[in-house]
Amino acid sequence: MDMTLEPIGTVRSPLVDRKTAPKQGTDGAPDAWLHFRAEYADGLTDVGAGQDILLLTWLDRANRATLRVRRRREPGVLRGVFSSRSPDRPNPIGLHRVRVLEKRDALTFRVGDLEALDGTPILDVKPVLDRRE
Amino acid sequence: MDMTLEPIGTVRSPLVDRKTAPKQGTDGAPDAWLHFRAEYADGLTDVGAGQDILLLTWLDRANRATLRVRRRREPGVLRGVFSSRSPDRPNPIGLHRVRVLEKRDALTFRVGDLEALDGTPILDVKPVLDRRE
Repeated sequence: MDMTLEPIGTVRSPLVDRKTAPKQGTDGAPDAWLHFRAEYADGLTDVGAGQDILLLTWLDRANRATLRVRRRREPGVLRGVFSSRSPDRPNPIGLHRVRVLEKRDALTFRVGDLEALDGTPILDVKPVLDRRE
Repeated sequence: MDMTLEPIGTVRSPLVDRKTAPKQGTDGAPDAWLHFRAEYADGLTDVGAGQDILLLTWLDRANRATLRVRRRREPGVLRGVFSSRSPDRPNPIGLHRVRVLEKRDALTFRVGDLEALDGTPILDVKPVLDRRE
């Protein structure tokens, strides 16, 4: 079965280093720009400023062999990675709920509060379903 | 960049056909079983019955060329796929919030209300973050 992902775009962010990036659950993640590839423009026509979206990314600097992680709030305890949002995981897909602040053109969006490093590939955009998320 | 996914498990469900499966947003999706691969057991130790989890799947019967879709509620209107939860999309990653009803053993979980077809590969499990989802 072909399970190969194709990037639909790239994150541009002032965050360039995992060590200095804010962790999920804290405040202070910066605005970032989403640059989509031209061939996906038709899929983006109904995404606009003011919307909350779910952004799926490929956490390309992840360690995919990780199965146990330390939680920030309980550093003495090892937890199974599937009970954590660690970027280090077997299939390092990032899930980010962000607000679209600006649509500069058909392929370029500014979003708020995105914890993703500069250069992170974008995999998907989904609408938030109020009933479920 | 290597963007190849590895299935961590498989969905077992009475849903075998996209045409008869319930659509997202409706009631009536059945319980399903998640069968994980043995090598991922260490990552699953803290996932248990009663928890709500986010399940990421690979929608292996998707048409990845789809960029415009018809919504069920507005069948006369074509929408950009990134404003829809259609399984047909360039990177067909399914996102399902489900409740763990039973953990039969370390690798076998029963979940409620899962809209995924029998045989669907499982990619990831993440905890629900109350603040964000």
